[in-house]
Amino acid sequence: MSSRRCAACKQLRRRCPSDCIFFPYFPPNNPQRFSFVHRIYGASNVGKLLQQVQEHQRADVADSLYYEAYCRIKSPVYGCVGIISILHQEIDLLERELAKVQAEISLVKGQTQIAQGQQVELSSSSFDLSTTTPWFY
Amino acid sequence: MSSRRCAACKQLRRRCPSDCIFFPYFPPNNPQRFSFVHRIYGASNVGKLLQQVQEHQRADVADSLYYEAYCRIKSPVYGCVGIISILHQEIDLLERELAKVQAEISLVKGQTQIAQGQQVELSSSSFDLSTTTPWFY
Repeated sequence: MSSRRCAACKQLRRRCPSDCIFFPYFPPNNPQRFSFVHRIYGASNVGKLLQQVQEHQRADVADSLYYEAYCRIKSPVYGCVGIISILHQEIDLLERELAKVQAEISLVKGQTQIAQGQQVELSSSSFDLSTTTPWFY
Repeated sequence: MSSRRCAACKQLRRRCPSDCIFFPYFPPNNPQRFSFVHRIYGASNVGKLLQQVQEHQRADVADSLYYEAYCRIKSPVYGCVGIISILHQEIDLLERELAKVQAEISLVKGQTQIAQGQQVELSSSSFDLSTTTPWFY
């Protein structure tokens, strides 16, 4: 029986039932995964959170709880909310950079139009010079 | 005593000690704030997470736990990890947009340089025409 107990039942030193809610998401070969969610949420809360969603969604629940627990252990004050803040700062920075580059492109496009306008003007005036009668005639 | 109990002690129907770990961060006028973290982490885990950091960091712990609990209740499958995914997608999009605009600006700058070069060329050739002796002399 011991070899088929999931990481949760192993850590909680209990029998692992055939319909164990933890078994598919906390395999015995990865004890740290359960250990992390257990430290932050407690086994009973993790079980409740898994049970309240449909079976096909449980792997995502286990993954996201593990990620949040991992973040909270690494960063006890902010947890993964700290990552959200960093990502928001990154977005602000990119938006400012994008606005700057877009303003620059508008400016360069405007200068190009002026340059092209002058080119057309010069081009037509030089053409005039070669085809019209010289002034001294 | 009832009026000075914090939201946690009120919900847990217990006496609120003078050194209650919850009192400063879960005031009685906002029962939902404690109710959310209680549903996701359990009161004992929230107490442990508050106690393991320094006092000046506890307000941030309470705020970030509340935010994560709020996200998990609103989105039971992904919690705030769903927000992290969305923000990563937004960053990818902004980075692609920025790369596109930067490529565009290089192109426009290149065209401007060509146009300015042609302008200088035409400008000097038109100058030549007006100052040199006509071919028919």
